[in-house]
Amino acid sequence: MEQRLTIITLGVSNMDVAADFYENKLGWKRHGNSMGDIVFFQLNGIQLALYPVQELAKDATVPADGEGFKGFTLAQNLRSEKEVDELISTLKGKGVKVVKEPEKAFWGGYSSYIQDPEGNLWEIAYNPHLPLDEKGSVIG
Amino acid sequence: MEQRLTIITLGVSNMDVAADFYENKLGWKRHGNSMGDIVFFQLNGIQLALYPVQELAKDATVPADGEGFKGFTLAQNLRSEKEVDELISTLKGKGVKVVKEPEKAFWGGYSSYIQDPEGNLWEIAYNPHLPLDEKGSVIG
Repeated sequence: MEQRLTIITLGVSNMDVAADFYENKLGWKRHGNSMGDIVFFQLNGIQLALYPVQELAKDATVPADGEGFKGFTLAQNLRSEKEVDELISTLKGKGVKVVKEPEKAFWGGYSSYIQDPEGNLWEIAYNPHLPLDEKGSVIG
Repeated sequence: MEQRLTIITLGVSNMDVAADFYENKLGWKRHGNSMGDIVFFQLNGIQLALYPVQELAKDATVPADGEGFKGFTLAQNLRSEKEVDELISTLKGKGVKVVKEPEKAFWGGYSSYIQDPEGNLWEIAYNPHLPLDEKGSVIG
């Protein structure tokens, strides 16, 4: 199996609130393929999708019930500690929930966490050991 | 906030089994930054990480308890229905759990689901509406 990914789909319980977060708090633009109850965002070579959690479970033919920690996190790495501080400050000003304020991490970086309205965790970090290209993708 | 992602981290309860799945069932190579209890895989401009679920929750300062549907799926799109059939057949031969056999999808594509040992769902699909570049990234 090729070592790549195409789409991350987040199951949402309230599409309007979730879409508002990604479009108006993070400032992302939805992709033209979005329709009905699915919203796509074009990221760096992959897409992030929002889809009703009941429908997502049904599509995968698994029970939709679930609670507590979802067992995964998403991360966006920035290019300096200053960028992390600035982004967290900007997001806080828009009412985004900051779960963990930026702090030095044991692995040598600088890390913080925000949460979307569905409880999905985004780490906003700077990692000096992980170089990014000019578009922000991981070089590798 | 830039419209991009750097890392998806999956919290795992059994690192040996999870790493074996990605390395020996899917055939992926771990990234050189892997160390101790974290394993990285370089994908198309992003990385997938495996990290103990308790540590992941602790890092994000949230409770680690969780059960049932994790509320997200990952997807890898291939270039034809035939490729989907072939990959599912190959993975099945390696003992990978196929949750949903390939079938025509209502949105015009062809879709199946497999599950990693931690219960994470991977959709293996063909979507004629979502063109991929030669490296398999979404053109956008």
